[in-house]
Amino acid sequence: MTNVLYQHGTLGTLMAGLLQGTASINDLLKHGDIGIATLTGSDGEVIIVDGKAYHANEHKEFVELVGDELSPYATVSRFTPDKTYSTSNKPSAEVYDEVKEKMLSKNLFSAVKISGTFKKMHVRMMPGQEPPYTRLINSANRQPEQIEKNIKGSVVGFFTPELFHGIGSAGFHVHFANDDRNFGGHVLDFEVSDVTVEIQNFETFEQHFAVDDEAFTNTDIDYKDIAKEIRQAE
Amino acid sequence: MTNVLYQHGTLGTLMAGLLQGTASINDLLKHGDIGIATLTGSDGEVIIVDGKAYHANEHKEFVELVGDELSPYATVSRFTPDKTYSTSNKPSAEVYDEVKEKMLSKNLFSAVKISGTFKKMHVRMMPGQEPPYTRLINSANRQPEQIEKNIKGSVVGFFTPELFHGIGSAGFHVHFANDDRNFGGHVLDFEVSDVTVEIQNFETFEQHFAVDDEAFTNTDIDYKDIAKEIRQAE
Repeated sequence: MTNVLYQHGTLGTLMAGLLQGTASINDLLKHGDIGIATLTGSDGEVIIVDGKAYHANEHKEFVELVGDELSPYATVSRFTPDKTYSTSNKPSAEVYDEVKEKMLSKNLFSAVKISGTFKKMHVRMMPGQEPPYTRLINSANRQPEQIEKNIKGSVVGFFTPELFHGIGSAGFHVHFANDDRNFGGHVLDFEVSDVTVEIQNFETFEQHFAVDDEAFTNTDIDYKDIAKEIRQAE
Repeated sequence: MTNVLYQHGTLGTLMAGLLQGTASINDLLKHGDIGIATLTGSDGEVIIVDGKAYHANEHKEFVELVGDELSPYATVSRFTPDKTYSTSNKPSAEVYDEVKEKMLSKNLFSAVKISGTFKKMHVRMMPGQEPPYTRLINSANRQPEQIEKNIKGSVVGFFTPELFHGIGSAGFHVHFANDDRNFGGHVLDFEVSDVTVEIQNFETFEQHFAVDDEAFTNTDIDYKDIAKEIRQAE
């Protein structure tokens, strides 16, 4: 299938505190070469770019993953851009506005990859929880942040349409990996110098559930306030 | 792929008044042999059972569809039940409670087929709108209902987990076709005499969007109150 966005788990379920990893990084790489994820315990930020998976943790370490690590929530796709253009010298809010104009529709999922030189890159890394897990908002409120200036790399991630808030985070949810592969994280904001922007529009959103995880199948999940908690945490 | 629930369009988008059909019944039948849908204008109730598609309209007519009719919102699957059991002499609320106990999880989508003799079957048929379309709640408020007693047939449809309310209708959303194929509709409630219940649990939910429909891709859809309107209408 082409133009399929594959997701394992949901952001809502993660926010509700079901943090046990249920899909391996190698499994995820079968469904795409670009993507975002987290590991068991919602430990850090996974960045999948050019078919490789990297991990940025709360200690500001950045490593390539081996493949057998487990993820409770991941979104990946085979990246085949429908639109490519260049842009320069503007803050992330303006870059996102441009991408929204160039996406086929705000009612569809899209992937975006922004590669080149960034004047500023501001990221955070979710601190991992140990069992017993609690609602993610607890660890989201104590995330370390990091800012780098004049850095080359790629922003990768997805646009989620408003109706799917809860399944993902409505709007853009993007991670960053630098070209030296030693810095990255969940993107808070940035400023581009000169970048290439690539956009893929998705016809199909494939939601995979952790059917073999009894913590998921047997739990009465409390989704109350999830929409609000996602807005606060993301 | 097995155990995939395929959906074209979303209930939220339908409720917001985007009622133009965008997938043909023949296209839908490629993705499943059991299912529920509506036609352009949200005209009536489509029941897909045993690989054939039927239509119940507001005039209480019931016909087999030809295949080139278009649907704005449809949910279908290849039915391969994971669990089969018999039950008798109880109202729909109790039947649903039993099904919920026997589904793998309330956090997954499931298909259900309930076949046999029903003491009572209470259905409604959505009146079709003509363009310019309005929010569905307007036509939902003037739906004719129909009750039949001691009737043989099949209830078919799906369970949607709470987090996906808006994408579908949280809980059970089922339609009915009698064995004589001359009566059916959207199920409001029923009472079983003796029936066989079959349940399929889904590992994957495949959401397909109407990427070629400019009314969908170019509209700023107002999803405010959609969750509430779905609860009122369904």
